[in-house]
Amino acid sequence: MNRQIDVCLSPELLNLYELEGRIVVVIDVLRATSCMVTGLAEGVESIHPVATLDQCLQLAGSGYLTAAERGGEQVAGFDLGNSPRAYLNGAFAGRKVAITTTNGTLAITKSAPFAKQVLIGAFLNLNALAEYLRQQPEDVVLLCAGWKGKVNMEDTLFAGALISELEATHTLCCDAPLVSKTLYQAVKEDLFGYLMQSSHAQRLSKFGVEEDIRFCLQADQYGVIPVLKGEELVVLPSTVSQ
Amino acid sequence: MNRQIDVCLSPELLNLYELEGRIVVVIDVLRATSCMVTGLAEGVESIHPVATLDQCLQLAGSGYLTAAERGGEQVAGFDLGNSPRAYLNGAFAGRKVAITTTNGTLAITKSAPFAKQVLIGAFLNLNALAEYLRQQPEDVVLLCAGWKGKVNMEDTLFAGALISELEATHTLCCDAPLVSKTLYQAVKEDLFGYLMQSSHAQRLSKFGVEEDIRFCLQADQYGVIPVLKGEELVVLPSTVSQ
Repeated sequence: MNRQIDVCLSPELLNLYELEGRIVVVIDVLRATSCMVTGLAEGVESIHPVATLDQCLQLAGSGYLTAAERGGEQVAGFDLGNSPRAYLNGAFAGRKVAITTTNGTLAITKSAPFAKQVLIGAFLNLNALAEYLRQQPEDVVLLCAGWKGKVNMEDTLFAGALISELEATHTLCCDAPLVSKTLYQAVKEDLFGYLMQSSHAQRLSKFGVEEDIRFCLQADQYGVIPVLKGEELVVLPSTVSQ
Repeated sequence: MNRQIDVCLSPELLNLYELEGRIVVVIDVLRATSCMVTGLAEGVESIHPVATLDQCLQLAGSGYLTAAERGGEQVAGFDLGNSPRAYLNGAFAGRKVAITTTNGTLAITKSAPFAKQVLIGAFLNLNALAEYLRQQPEDVVLLCAGWKGKVNMEDTLFAGALISELEATHTLCCDAPLVSKTLYQAVKEDLFGYLMQSSHAQRLSKFGVEEDIRFCLQADQYGVIPVLKGEELVVLPSTVSQ
């Protein structure tokens, strides 16, 4: 199989990428996609990503827990913020969650109408994702959520980590995959130390979420891959919830 | 002086950057900005960047030499293509040149209405540019021309090289400067070998321009900095033409 892998470093560039017939992996390591992986792995039934705070609150009426983050902080009046550790120990097993974040949910809703399949990636499910993609015939586009449209560090690093796992089976399309891979290879021995130089990590560390950052950088904690089914994220059937 | 430096990795992201009152450095290493530096250093009187082939041809009537490249190749009916080596040995000293390229001229015309000053950067004038920027009080935005809107390797690498020269005097704003710097530091010992893995270099090498690529990667060949004055690029007065 001759498959290609490309990286879109910002949702603002998504119009330059062909998504038709392809698998899109949405990446928002700090912290939306890390929450999604953790939540579903810890027994949450489904996650409904929405673009706005209003849409999120509307779902509360249908029994959803609501999770909202803007600019790195939990929004008042919502059940949860954007910490993946809130889902540990099956805290919300069996519940449905509606989630809205600054960048990650937008990346999902932008790619959903076009892609063949939308998956959720984070360091937490890196290996499960790599194994699944190796078995699929489709080309892959990694979509980094970035920060308010700009390229960010942690999502670029994760794209590089995933490409490092796939370069034996997939052809790197353009320069962004090579940029991501080289970056990851250069700093992988101390991801946390390096990332703490980045603007988003510094922004987040003001909110006391250094522990979240350490949690989100742990590779292969979970075997689940969230997949978009209709409007909701559920566990991809071939992967295993904890 | 507390100055900031940021990197816009694609002209498609330019709307996210504040340019007002700032110095913008346009970067299109392969090969538009390398041509501009070489041309002006080799005695060309001025360079008029235009967006379209038609605009370029119209200037021929006013005595301009015309230079046009699309998709990496010289366009039929124009005097010059996009090889910086064509300007060597003062071949066109005293002439005016109108130039249109796939990405570089667009980056210039997009930033011109907003920036305080638009400069042209390439490895060929790296050190002259760094020295000049160290002396200016303004914040700096490095604008990579990319490839048809996508992030490319060679422009990201040059941004990283320039940031490496300026990190003692300028604060890195967001993640893109850190990505660029880390990438450059990781591969600077063999820029040519690394770059030949990139898609644009491979695309260009089909046209037999490997020598151009080697030429464009030479640091500090020239002391001139092209600056946009009205609609034309001329030598920045404080810098020295050869």
